[in-house]
Amino acid sequence: MTMDTAIRNEEEPATLLMRRLGLEARAAAAELALASTEAKNHALCQAAANIRARSGAILAANARDLAAGKAKRLTAAMLDRLALDQARIEAIARGLEEVAALPDPVGTVLAEWERPNGLRISRVRTPLGVIGVIYESRPNVTADAGGLCLKAGNAAILRCGSESFGSSSALMSCLAAGLQAAHLHEAAIQLVPTTDRAAVGEMLRMSEFIDVIVPRGGKSLVERVTAESRVPLFKHLEGICHTYVHADADIDLARRVVVNAKMRRPGICGATETLLVDRAVAARFVPLILDDLAAAGCEVRGDDESRTLDDRIIPATPADWDTEYLDAILALRIVADLEAALDHVHRHSSGHTEAILTEDGAAAERFVTELDSAIVMVNASTQFADGGEFGMGAEIGISTGKLHARGPVGVEQLTSFKYVVRGHGQCRP
Amino acid sequence: MTMDTAIRNEEEPATLLMRRLGLEARAAAAELALASTEAKNHALCQAAANIRARSGAILAANARDLAAGKAKRLTAAMLDRLALDQARIEAIARGLEEVAALPDPVGTVLAEWERPNGLRISRVRTPLGVIGVIYESRPNVTADAGGLCLKAGNAAILRCGSESFGSSSALMSCLAAGLQAAHLHEAAIQLVPTTDRAAVGEMLRMSEFIDVIVPRGGKSLVERVTAESRVPLFKHLEGICHTYVHADADIDLARRVVVNAKMRRPGICGATETLLVDRAVAARFVPLILDDLAAAGCEVRGDDESRTLDDRIIPATPADWDTEYLDAILALRIVADLEAALDHVHRHSSGHTEAILTEDGAAAERFVTELDSAIVMVNASTQFADGGEFGMGAEIGISTGKLHARGPVGVEQLTSFKYVVRGHGQCRP
Repeated sequence: MTMDTAIRNEEEPATLLMRRLGLEARAAAAELALASTEAKNHALCQAAANIRARSGAILAANARDLAAGKAKRLTAAMLDRLALDQARIEAIARGLEEVAALPDPVGTVLAEWERPNGLRISRVRTPLGVIGVIYESRPNVTADAGGLCLKAGNAAILRCGSESFGSSSALMSCLAAGLQAAHLHEAAIQLVPTTDRAAVGEMLRMSEFIDVIVPRGGKSLVERVTAESRVPLFKHLEGICHTYVHADADIDLARRVVVNAKMRRPGICGATETLLVDRAVAARFVPLILDDLAAAGCEVRGDDESRTLDDRIIPATPADWDTEYLDAILALRIVADLEAALDHVHRHSSGHTEAILTEDGAAAERFVTELDSAIVMVNASTQFADGGEFGMGAEIGISTGKLHARGPVGVEQLTSFKYVVRGHGQCRP
Repeated sequence: MTMDTAIRNEEEPATLLMRRLGLEARAAAAELALASTEAKNHALCQAAANIRARSGAILAANARDLAAGKAKRLTAAMLDRLALDQARIEAIARGLEEVAALPDPVGTVLAEWERPNGLRISRVRTPLGVIGVIYESRPNVTADAGGLCLKAGNAAILRCGSESFGSSSALMSCLAAGLQAAHLHEAAIQLVPTTDRAAVGEMLRMSEFIDVIVPRGGKSLVERVTAESRVPLFKHLEGICHTYVHADADIDLARRVVVNAKMRRPGICGATETLLVDRAVAARFVPLILDDLAAAGCEVRGDDESRTLDDRIIPATPADWDTEYLDAILALRIVADLEAALDHVHRHSSGHTEAILTEDGAAAERFVTELDSAIVMVNASTQFADGGEFGMGAEIGISTGKLHARGPVGVEQLTSFKYVVRGHGQCRP
């Protein structure tokens, strides 16, 4: 492991270690910004091949992490996120190959124009520089995030949770061998070689070495990072997503979409957490959707008005409107009209994704215009809130911030730009 | 004044006052995001008319500020930035009309595509929300920044320096009357109604009310804001801009461009501070450019090699390579070749603007590719680093950051975007 992850002198304090990693990442970033597409893709494909070839070692490291996690009494959900198997390893390898297949964003001309004085100006994509990724138990983030950063020409400093350190280190060694095969800088992707929590604090302070940090994890991780970071963040705190069944909704369509939006995978950030039903269709729609949701194993917590329509509905408390369940639980509220639906969303949305189901084009336009969430949808499942589903390729997360990156954060969002101005001796009057 | 700037209860602590301004700005931003282009333009043009109509009152307020400034022994440069006259007032009014004439960025579709499953996805420009602007003595920033933020659909909280508070308040009253005439929210543009320094500290902390802060001022202001802010910044710390005269430069072109780049207006951030001259042309070029610079009144501080070529050159110290003079002083260094020029820029640039002067296309491409400053130029004066000169209209500043906004920050850079997804009942498999 010491050969492939950054080498650590056991005497070195975490702050010094991190600054050394930062310096090395800056040097790597300067080289990577000019690296050829071929070299980056070769490193990614070679890393994928290494992951397949070394799956036995990766699974063995993962088994040790899992045993330690059970001893530490991690929750079943955490252990599931930590666990690897042959299928998950194959998915990680294929993910790297898919990133290799994406167009290289670096050097793309985003806009070009000529001024009356003959100056030709172009806006050209450049890498961001050094990206820090702080994550928890999912070892696949090591390869997913490292690969995406590399493709966009950035150096990555990856900080995994202590529970997945062995698995992540095994994956890191495959990435490192890929970098080496492609003759890229060995610090292009670095895994922080310590589980010391002081390393995270230092990462959040070292804005001279890291351009942006992506926290990937639960609400408490994101809150800590937000409170402490001096480095800009691409983050999403929560996905409290709403689906609103409008008075003019197609009832059959609404039944299918709502069940999918909640129950396809209740644990992802794009899952609908609150269902708003227009009073005009509530008496008809609520019993039908309760049948569907009950059949799918979903608990429904509703307001008083909804409970008069179906006695399977459990009473909701005010906290339900602000809860990201990430589970087979749905909050339900009857609203007077579009206005009331917009008002509810304005008050309770986390700015991630909202959908309206309606056949009324004017109502749909008002919904998508007046809401300012990162993603607003008409007649579609909020579970489509995903970079892959948007056709943007792999993503490092969904940003609910408004600056720079918003919505799915894929390779293009991991870039910046510069202006190139070409003249023939122009002086400014 | 209390009618037009936000009303302040003298008993209210600065922190409470600022949070109240923040809440009002959020409410204004929600309305402004949906305001019509016509209403915004009407407010801008009406504000311009008010500024012309009330120029007497503005000049009287400015005279009081200037008298107080002289009593406080402000420097001549600060007093010049503070001073208004009829011509500067006309320029402020015309600036607002020019912003009104710009296309409205809000609602522009930036990209549109359809997925194989029939989902139609578009990326649509939205306002950022609430923008804080912290500036020093130039009262024109009140109108310039307030107008740009309004055009992009954002609410603005403006914090001027205490020395220009009277002048800025007089301008603010013209903006407020413009908002009122257009029936826009009165908190769309707010001038912080106190010179209490604690108000700035609170502004930098209230990330729930302010989406981005633009510090417009000298290095010490930007450093303070950077150290304290919990709100993202669009900033530039310094403009240490370089012009490199390559071995294959057209000497006549280089003479004209270098003099313009340094001396057209030495005090702007895009002024060249360091001239790098390739050894291959140094013996020929240095005496000629010294003639030109001496005639223009510019002091030249050079390295030892340059001083062997012309005895008018004063010895440079290492600090000169890292100094933004903003004055009629130029640092000069002879470099062995393009490689050495790139190395000098990498070490000393502040990431603002750099230019190469050369007839060699390959050298020019290498220069613009390998440098990652916000603006890189070929055969043109660095003084063109300006939103207006780029054809982007008025700007609120030049950003040397890499996130979101880089280079000139105009109306488009003061926006974010959202994704609008239109379907017909699609569920995610």
